[in-house]
Amino acid sequence: MNKKYFYLFAFLFSMHFAYPQNDSTMIKSFFNEELSRGKSYEMLDHLSNKIGGRLSGSPQAAQAVEWGKRTMEFLGFDKVWLQEVMVPHWVRGEKEQAKILSQKEKTEVRICALGNSIGTGPKGISAIVIEVKNFKELAKLGRKNIEGKIVFFNRALDPTNIGTGAAYGGAVDQRGSGAVEAAKYGAVGVVVRSMTLANDDHPHTGAMHYEDSITKIPACAISIYGATKLSEAIKFDANTKFYFRQTCEMLPDEKSFNVVGEIKGSVFPDEIIVVGGHLDSWDIGDGAHDDGTGIVQSIEVLRLFKALGIRPKRTIRAVLFMNEENGMKGGLKYAELASKVNAKHIAAIESDGGGFTPRAFGVDDDNAVQKMQPWVQMLKPFGIHEINKGWGGVDISPLKKEGAILIGYACDSQRYFDYHHSEIDTFDKVNKRELELGAGCMAALVWLISEYGL
Amino acid sequence: MNKKYFYLFAFLFSMHFAYPQNDSTMIKSFFNEELSRGKSYEMLDHLSNKIGGRLSGSPQAAQAVEWGKRTMEFLGFDKVWLQEVMVPHWVRGEKEQAKILSQKEKTEVRICALGNSIGTGPKGISAIVIEVKNFKELAKLGRKNIEGKIVFFNRALDPTNIGTGAAYGGAVDQRGSGAVEAAKYGAVGVVVRSMTLANDDHPHTGAMHYEDSITKIPACAISIYGATKLSEAIKFDANTKFYFRQTCEMLPDEKSFNVVGEIKGSVFPDEIIVVGGHLDSWDIGDGAHDDGTGIVQSIEVLRLFKALGIRPKRTIRAVLFMNEENGMKGGLKYAELASKVNAKHIAAIESDGGGFTPRAFGVDDDNAVQKMQPWVQMLKPFGIHEINKGWGGVDISPLKKEGAILIGYACDSQRYFDYHHSEIDTFDKVNKRELELGAGCMAALVWLISEYGL
Repeated sequence: MNKKYFYLFAFLFSMHFAYPQNDSTMIKSFFNEELSRGKSYEMLDHLSNKIGGRLSGSPQAAQAVEWGKRTMEFLGFDKVWLQEVMVPHWVRGEKEQAKILSQKEKTEVRICALGNSIGTGPKGISAIVIEVKNFKELAKLGRKNIEGKIVFFNRALDPTNIGTGAAYGGAVDQRGSGAVEAAKYGAVGVVVRSMTLANDDHPHTGAMHYEDSITKIPACAISIYGATKLSEAIKFDANTKFYFRQTCEMLPDEKSFNVVGEIKGSVFPDEIIVVGGHLDSWDIGDGAHDDGTGIVQSIEVLRLFKALGIRPKRTIRAVLFMNEENGMKGGLKYAELASKVNAKHIAAIESDGGGFTPRAFGVDDDNAVQKMQPWVQMLKPFGIHEINKGWGGVDISPLKKEGAILIGYACDSQRYFDYHHSEIDTFDKVNKRELELGAGCMAALVWLISEYGL
Repeated sequence: MNKKYFYLFAFLFSMHFAYPQNDSTMIKSFFNEELSRGKSYEMLDHLSNKIGGRLSGSPQAAQAVEWGKRTMEFLGFDKVWLQEVMVPHWVRGEKEQAKILSQKEKTEVRICALGNSIGTGPKGISAIVIEVKNFKELAKLGRKNIEGKIVFFNRALDPTNIGTGAAYGGAVDQRGSGAVEAAKYGAVGVVVRSMTLANDDHPHTGAMHYEDSITKIPACAISIYGATKLSEAIKFDANTKFYFRQTCEMLPDEKSFNVVGEIKGSVFPDEIIVVGGHLDSWDIGDGAHDDGTGIVQSIEVLRLFKALGIRPKRTIRAVLFMNEENGMKGGLKYAELASKVNAKHIAAIESDGGGFTPRAFGVDDDNAVQKMQPWVQMLKPFGIHEINKGWGGVDISPLKKEGAILIGYACDSQRYFDYHHSEIDTFDKVNKRELELGAGCMAALVWLISEYGL
């Protein structure tokens, strides 16, 4: 685009809407501050690049707790404290190895152990590999075809889902339950196609689970390039073997913490609005989008109130939840403690879909959705086009019992699963302005709830 | 986000709306085809990585013309042809050099010549440098302070503009007219802060212009890091000098071409709908977002009709315009030829804001905006939340006189100016799904116009 038409171009982008002038001015002030002097990007740089991946129970997770507490104290919030919580402590061990063993050749492929998986033993395991697309196919093959073999779950995410969360939701049972299902038929291991829509060579980890009554077998994720090669090898030769070695293991639970920062409400101090994300991440990237962005946006919401000298009518809290990825212990602990003191949580907002450009808020309550509709016009100029019935977030979900309206910040989802749970979920994948617009939208919503209730 | 909640998460993302079932099915079929078997990303890979930056008059621009013609012929459109047009032929010459010369030290900084600028001569130029923020400050300083000096235009893009196009529009006069304005007061050269919201070391080029009656002086853009250093140096020492060397020059006009592909309408073959972008780009990057994405999306719109076996009621044309960046000769030529044969253009859609996630369409006609409102509900599930009064595009603007409704594809603008006109406007900055969603939205809109008129 050349210079000649910039005024017309500018016109297109200057989306103005009529709404109450005071509220509009206040909301704009959050964005002005964030886009001019925001600290979210700087905080994310530290969390991603100085601390890095911070799996529950790891030294990095402990550093992140310390950093979160220190940061919120430095920012001068009214009160900052830790909530002790025991968390699972799974460790990845040595770099994983994997090969496709056909009659003629050995082809190395890229894998990573799935979170919570057992290891293969130091020698690794090798067996004939059977490809299936779902649990139905697996059941049809039955024990006679599966026993002693490795099962390869290779159902791709459906690219025709416009929301990538739906595509993920339609495939992730393979990762979560693949080992349990395959073990029922005597499989010795599972390899799962990575949960991504990108076509590249980065394996994506993520949680899997075992069941007490079923033999535990090791489970890993294979990159899309690797999955393609493995599928081709099996088509060519049904006796193709797969070898993988991973030394991951589950250690005893570790002590960790949620970190909470608070600004007290001036009119209704007993009514609490939570804004949060999860402080833990997977270990193979920096956890920048999942969920460093949610963490720094949550802290930033409170910082914006401070920077603008706004005392909220209701109490607002930034909660950095621990252990979302493989246990949800932090979310459960926060709600448990809230219940003990009969804390009145009127709303909880979670940002856990990456730090992308704003799109919508999802709200889990029909009445609240209705009540919030007039706010849509106020948020539209900043990219929030809809407030719909929708999903809040994993960490805040236990607050439902405490009466909170659960709200999810739903940013654009197209790039999220390219990075999610992989070694390329790194700081450089986050755009500063997209991150800041998210923080601004969350601050605006917190302010509206704080002013008008729900 | 962990596996436990994927169904709820999926629910949030499955945005369904009620609209006429046949139209909805048809529109979804464009997206299903594009997201499953789309060719836009593959085409962009070729255009960006095999051809690269393709400034008007360059060998790469000629290759791009050849590629565009061959590609549309291969795809089997009803008719593919070239439109000859003479274009400016500006060449950058050797790698530019620049230094801040303070009393104590020489600091190298990164610059690039502005498009259409003259060179400095082989020895470069060196002079005391004066910083200004706008033409008013420049006028106030006047000839006595400016004569014989280099003027440094250092007004930043305003980050509080939510649409980055407005921020660009508020600053780009420095780039376009800075040399003319500074020369009026006897300046010997100008250096302009890069037109970007990112804080990095990549200079951003772009067109500038001269006026016949005013002395031509050389003009370059400096990276943001460089601009920051230069401003600090001037604050510290008002006698700071700036040195730069560029060997760019304007050569005689070259012959080039627009490339046009067409599928004939089945009911109203004389009514034409254009979808286009510009085939030329700046030379220092690959021109992936500006405007490779618009080019491949435009071709893809017609390919989708072919792939789905849909014969449009009205004639649809993909137009790959030449020379948007520094002359607009292709856009003028297309309209001139249309006028000669009294071609009836009912609408023209341009994609020239990058290949980012969909947001809106801008339409330059109030009645058309009204007529198109019912279509918004159909396009919402794919990210088009608004059809508003807005800007069409540079290349299609001369079609206004031919009676066309001008429509701009307005994708998310947050990242655009990070890359725009710089060496990092490269293929890897384009997300496949975001590109494809844009192509799908454009195809859906073309189909609706083709079915229902405007």
